[in-house]
Amino acid sequence: MHFTAETSSNGVLERDFIVGEVPGVLFSPLAGPDHAPLVLMAHGGGQHKRAPGILGRAHRFVTGCGFTVAAIDAPGHGDRPRTATDERHVALLRQAQSAGEPIYPIVVDMHTTLAARAVPEWQATLDALQELPQIGPEAPIGFWGIMQGTGIGVPLTAVEPRIAAAVFGCLGHESLSEAAARITVPIEFLLQWDDEHIDRRSGLALFDAFASKEKTLHANVGAHGDVPRFEVDSAARFFTRHLGTSPA
Amino acid sequence: MHFTAETSSNGVLERDFIVGEVPGVLFSPLAGPDHAPLVLMAHGGGQHKRAPGILGRAHRFVTGCGFTVAAIDAPGHGDRPRTATDERHVALLRQAQSAGEPIYPIVVDMHTTLAARAVPEWQATLDALQELPQIGPEAPIGFWGIMQGTGIGVPLTAVEPRIAAAVFGCLGHESLSEAAARITVPIEFLLQWDDEHIDRRSGLALFDAFASKEKTLHANVGAHGDVPRFEVDSAARFFTRHLGTSPA
Repeated sequence: MHFTAETSSNGVLERDFIVGEVPGVLFSPLAGPDHAPLVLMAHGGGQHKRAPGILGRAHRFVTGCGFTVAAIDAPGHGDRPRTATDERHVALLRQAQSAGEPIYPIVVDMHTTLAARAVPEWQATLDALQELPQIGPEAPIGFWGIMQGTGIGVPLTAVEPRIAAAVFGCLGHESLSEAAARITVPIEFLLQWDDEHIDRRSGLALFDAFASKEKTLHANVGAHGDVPRFEVDSAARFFTRHLGTSPA
Repeated sequence: MHFTAETSSNGVLERDFIVGEVPGVLFSPLAGPDHAPLVLMAHGGGQHKRAPGILGRAHRFVTGCGFTVAAIDAPGHGDRPRTATDERHVALLRQAQSAGEPIYPIVVDMHTTLAARAVPEWQATLDALQELPQIGPEAPIGFWGIMQGTGIGVPLTAVEPRIAAAVFGCLGHESLSEAAARITVPIEFLLQWDDEHIDRRSGLALFDAFASKEKTLHANVGAHGDVPRFEVDSAARFFTRHLGTSPA
């Protein structure tokens, strides 16, 4: 792991890093105890490690909860090159969008392909993060990712015993049910009741598939992209309950 | 409205009152501004105005949010006599329980009968509460009631424009869909994912039936009676968002 740049704003230290070929950002408090909870944060499709939704949540988690947050670019996203398969998927997606056809079957294929690459990348990133004295093997670890972040995060959490709690959502059960059934850690799951891309029954089926004894579904009125802002606070409290440190 | 007793504990003033034949309790801060938000709190079946779940939530809302809370005994509950119909319902319920038969159809009938009496009682109670200078017509008003509290609260909120936000849950759509479809205020709706009494689809159908533009479903793993304690805090934040005063 190499740190390549360092800035700070609004009480948050932001350090750009690279692990192998994967660029990321580590968000941490300007001062605070070592081994604070670490939240791995995965961005949505077409976005990147500094997308506004990631920056806003990362800052909220750092300043409100005392967490450390790590975000990386998914394969073919942000600063990373696209493979021929990535390009094909993007072309299919644009074609379906302009033809007014359902994009969800293409999205499911994209996520499956992405997850095969992203899961080992997240694991290598986590290995590297745990070598930092500030984090170490002691920091409790959570995962936050909705939409594409769930497409990657569910397979990751299914095979990664270091993740102790996760927020997922805005995705259906297609291709994810088997991985979800292997997950037993506490889950908070977001669902948009009027999602124009994800069938409501498919989202409910994914929530149902998790083997977790503690899982909560938060379903809100609105379209795919209209997750209410108060769900950020709810996620902060969820992670605080399960990973520790003072309440948000 | 007559006040019949007054006690205080843990920073909460509790005043017993009677409106007509309906006994209730008004919970308020020992000191605080007039016209704070008022939450009408309805207990579950077989319970009463001072049941532990009511006391705990009322104290939380008063001390954590600065709200005033009013709880009354439902018809045939607490200090109130049972009618012949109440007795028949209770007998049918016990018979079904000891025979291991489904109780839900009986519960639906009970709620319909109870709501016909309880809705005007809540409205008269609210009229009386608004005549107190501490409350007045200015206090924003919310309703909290799950299970039987939803069986009464949905018909009440459908006809009572003074209620500006409501927490419901743990009940199905049978007999309530039409009233729910007339409700447009913000709703937080609790559903127990493994409810042994309420069919999951019926609970989801009731959430779906509300006409509210802002409504959130919180579904948690567990049986009918196992609503997690953190949902009390969530309800406190929900009412704070919609009725005002400082965050919980």
